[in-house]
Order: sequence, then C-alpha cells, then structure tokens
Amino acid sequence: MPPPDLSAGVPGPVAWRHPVRVYFQDTDAGGIVYHGTYLNFLERARTEWLRHLGIDLRAMALAGAQFIVHEMSIQYLKPALLDDALTITVAPWLLGRAHFTLAQTVLRAESLLVRGSVSLACVHPSTLRPVRLPPALRQALGAAAEDTAP
Amino acid sequence: MPPPDLSAGVPGPVAWRHPVRVYFQDTDAGGIVYHGTYLNFLERARTEWLRHLGIDLRAMALAGAQFIVHEMSIQYLKPALLDDALTITVAPWLLGRAHFTLAQTVLRAESLLVRGSVSLACVHPSTLRPVRLPPALRQALGAAAEDTAP
Amino acid sequence: MPPPDLSAGVPGPVAWRHPVRVYFQDTDAGGIVYHGTYLNFLERARTEWLRHLGIDLRAMALAGAQFIVHEMSIQYLKPALLDDALTITVAPWLLGRAHFTLAQTVLRAESLLVRGSVSLACVHPSTLRPVRLPPALRQALGAAAEDTAP
Amino acid sequence: MPPPDLSAGVPGPVAWRHPVRVYFQDTDAGGIVYHGTYLNFLERARTEWLRHLGIDLRAMALAGAQFIVHEMSIQYLKPALLDDALTITVAPWLLGRAHFTLAQTVLRAESLLVRGSVSLACVHPSTLRPVRLPPALRQALGAAAEDTAP
Repeated sequence: MPPPDLSAGVPGPVAWRHPVRVYFQDTDAGGIVYHGTYLNFLERARTEWLRHLGIDLRAMALAGAQFIVHEMSIQYLKPALLDDALTITVAPWLLGRAHFTLAQTVLRAESLLVRGSVSLACVHPSTLRPVRLPPALRQALGAAAEDTAP
Repeated sequence: MPPPDLSAGVPGPVAWRHPVRVYFQDTDAGGIVYHGTYLNFLERARTEWLRHLGIDLRAMALAGAQFIVHEMSIQYLKPALLDDALTITVAPWLLGRAHFTLAQTVLRAESLLVRGSVSLACVHPSTLRPVRLPPALRQALGAAAEDTAP
Repeated sequence: MPPPDLSAGVPGPVAWRHPVRVYFQDTDAGGIVYHGTYLNFLERARTEWLRHLGIDLRAMALAGAQFIVHEMSIQYLKPALLDDALTITVAPWLLGRAHFTLAQTVLRAESLLVRGSVSLACVHPSTLRPVRLPPALRQALGAAAEDTAP
Repeated sequence: MPPPDLSAGVPGPVAWRHPVRVYFQDTDAGGIVYHGTYLNFLERARTEWLRHLGIDLRAMALAGAQFIVHEMSIQYLKPALLDDALTITVAPWLLGRAHFTLAQTVLRAESLLVRGSVSLACVHPSTLRPVRLPPALRQALGAAAEDTAP
C-alpha cells in the first residue's frame, strides 16, 4: 500500500529499522505527536541506514555533495502518543541519476501509524546543482530496484 | 500546477497570505531551511486563515473538535535561506463531510519555493473519531469548491 | 527582578517588543508551550531588534562574524497556551568586547510568563574564535550600559 | 564546575548517560547544533533516567501529576556538529517538596560541550498547582542529596 503519488513500481523490502521513543518535545497540545515531528523521525532512520551503507554525510559535504528532500508524500493513519516506542523503516524504491526515492513507515509494534515516500536529490552544497549519487548508494538502491523489476 | 496526488479538481483562488521570516531556528547545517520547518510555516498560515474565518482552535477543542493532518504532499522546488521574507499562501481545494484539503505554497517575492497539498480531518480530541466540519469552514470551502466546479 | 546569575548591574530599558502567536507546533502534550520553544521566541525577537539596529545576520556571516549563544538563564513563571498572543521583549544589559548580554521576557498582556538572560558571543563562522562586536551593536549596547551605570 | 546560579551544594554523581546522535534537524545555518536543540537532548536523557527509576510520565499524567521545567541555566562551551555522537548525563542535585534540580551535561567523548542545571516542578496537569514528588524520585534524589551533604 504505497502512497498514491509515486506508483512507478513497488518499494523494495525494508532495508533498515530504527527505534524512536516519543518525548514531550515531539508532541503537541492535541496530546499526540505533532505531524511535522514524524519528518524528524524519518530523517533519523534514513541517516542511520545511509551510515550503515558507509555513507558519511559530513564527509560527503566536504567532498561537495549533499542530500536534500525534493518531494514528500505522507499519510497519517493513527497517531503516536507520548512515551510510545516506535520503529521507523526504510525501503529503497526508485533510483535516478541524481536522486532516489525511499518508502518509509512509522510502526508501533505491528501497527502502521504513518507511511510515506521521500525523494531526495544529491546536490552540491553551495550551488545546489545536481550531483551524481555516491556509488555505495547506487549499488544499494540499484539492487533493490532490480529486485522489484517485473 | 498542483502536486500530482490530489488531482480531483483544481484549487480555488488564494484565500490567505501569511508573512514568515526565516531565523536560525528554521535552518539546518546545509545552510537552507530544514525541509520539516516548512510544515510549521504552512500550519501558521492556515491557522491564521481559520482565525480570519472566525474559527478559534482553542474554543473548538473545548467544544469537542480538533483538526489533524491526515495526508500531505510537498514539493520542494527552491530552498529558502536565512533572513528570507517569505509569504505562505492558503487556497481551499476539496471539501468532505469531516475533512478538507488545502493547496499551500511558500513564495519569496514572486518565486515559488515550495508547494503542497494538506488534508485535514476534523476529529474528537479524545476519541479521534471524525466530527462534522464547523459550518463557517464548510461555507468557506463550499464556496471555493463551487467556484472551481466545471 | 533579573534572573540571579548575571547580577552585575540591571538591564537597560526595553528596546524592542516582538509579537508572537502560539500554534500547535509550539505546544506539547502537557497542553502548554514546550519549555524549549520559548528559546525560539526569544531568538525571533532579538533578531528583529538587531535588524532594526541595521545588523544583517546574513551579511555579517559573509563578512566573517556570527553570534552564538554562550550562556542562558531562564525562569518559567506561568505557562503560555495554544493561541495566546504573546509579546517578547529585548533589553540590553551587559557589553563586553566580543560578547553581550540581553534581558528578555515573554509577556501575555501585562502578565510576565518567562524571563531570562541570554549572553551571545560574536565569533568567526569557521574558526568560532571571538570577533569584535559590530559598531552599531556596541553603540546601542553602550548607550544602554551608560544609562544604567550608577 | 556547576553553573553559578544554583550553588547550594554540589551535584551528586552522574546517575544516567544517554547517547544522542546529531542529525540535520538538530543543526542550524551556522553549521553547528542550534542552541535550543540541546534542551531536547537534555529532556530525552532525564526522561530515560526517570523511566529507569520506574517513573512513567504517561501513567503519572493520568494520576494527576506532571513535571514542568521552571528554571534552567545553560552554558555553551563548545559546539556540537552534524553526525557527532554525544552523551547526555544526568546528576541529581537539589530536592524540594514539589520540585527538584538536576545537573546535566553534553559530552563528545571526554570533551564537555554544554552544562546546565534544570529545575523541574511537579504539578497537577489541569490546575498546574504543585503536587508532591513521586516517592521513587524522592528516594533517588534524597539519596543523592545525602551523599553530597556536608
């Protein structure tokens, strides 16, 4: 059940799971996690996945490449609450020359709370012009793309 | 040019413009506004638009109704920078019984930086069950929906 | 009634007032403004005061100078709530060669909610070494310091 | 070397260490962690310490008690950077009937980046009136206070 806007193919299998705990800082006066906070959770999970692939964002920046989010689609199905222990998942989805798309979810135990697609572009930090994706990432995403090819 | 996922009809005309200034708190080490921060900007603008329509979120909560974001689609076209003076727009789009969709943009002068659609549901604060939209909002959105009907 | 940690002299008169509205993004599940959010409010107010003095943070950074907070003391007296219309004040307090201290408050109408002192250092963006304060700031703060000298 | 404003006694030994990783969401355009973000890090660490003591914030809220920060003093000594692996420490300091004070630090390896004192009051969630501290917390803090008594 991917979000409807990026339906070219289906995401690969979940490649990474990152635990997140909900604190007061993440909630709002509605008594639930603020809708914008989930983007922080998603960023933490995909950064740890990139680190696992050997991609160091600080070294990348020094070498003239940086990821920026250029498109995002999120569905909020059930709210997370204070003190919840959540799992954030990352699954490779689409691979371009200078950008890639991930499917990400927020789970509480087996319950799906939030799902979304996040497209990131690789750009030069100063000019913000597109830069080729790091090979390690192409490899990881390429493998996933092939897995899900018809 | 609406985001591609909510293409049932086109948004109504811009109903509200809200000025936002970019501070250090809004930026990240990439030197640009953090992608999650724009959601804060969008919330501020639509809250002021709702206030303009006579909808008081605190009074609503006491009366047993609250808006929660249930779907969102965002495209980041150009980055906003520290000290930028931005304008956030709100345009009514779709109207349901217990939810509605807005088209929102982030502009710097006439330049379109970010655009998105945000769908909000009206729910009971405790049960999070759907609640009928406030009449003032139905009226504002209904008028917009009619304007854009074929 | 200044916070007790920076008692060398008393703050000058209030030099700036900045309006802030409280949105869901600023609150937490306790139903009040999150304690960390007030720091955002304080930053917005002192940035606008600096702008009023002719100090442009983006131009300063390009010219090799940047403010960083190096000490802060905050007292939370009463909570701010969703939808509150607040006023954030800035009063010059202490002036050093490469740093300065402001007294800041958060008010709701005439009611004092939060007060604090914020010390900022002027540093080089890359080396983070101390840099002389901009003349316009020295002048504004110097005048205030003289006003309050015995 | 405690912050200067709460000099009644010295903090007890470090009772808890919490790891934190720095992501883009935590940084600002100065290329360092935003000064307000450290408050989030401090909250995460003391919440995990409270959980370790058997104190469940959600259960407490249902039972009519909630912690709010009522005073805070922070010194920023060195900046944390993107991707840094930090340790946040918690040491009990002062114990009152309805409030308590912690000494907290932010470390990168053995380097002290930030230190502060955070005073929290225990209040009723609706009335915000003082409520007696939970026994488990009194015990943990009382032991620490006795350890450091002359």
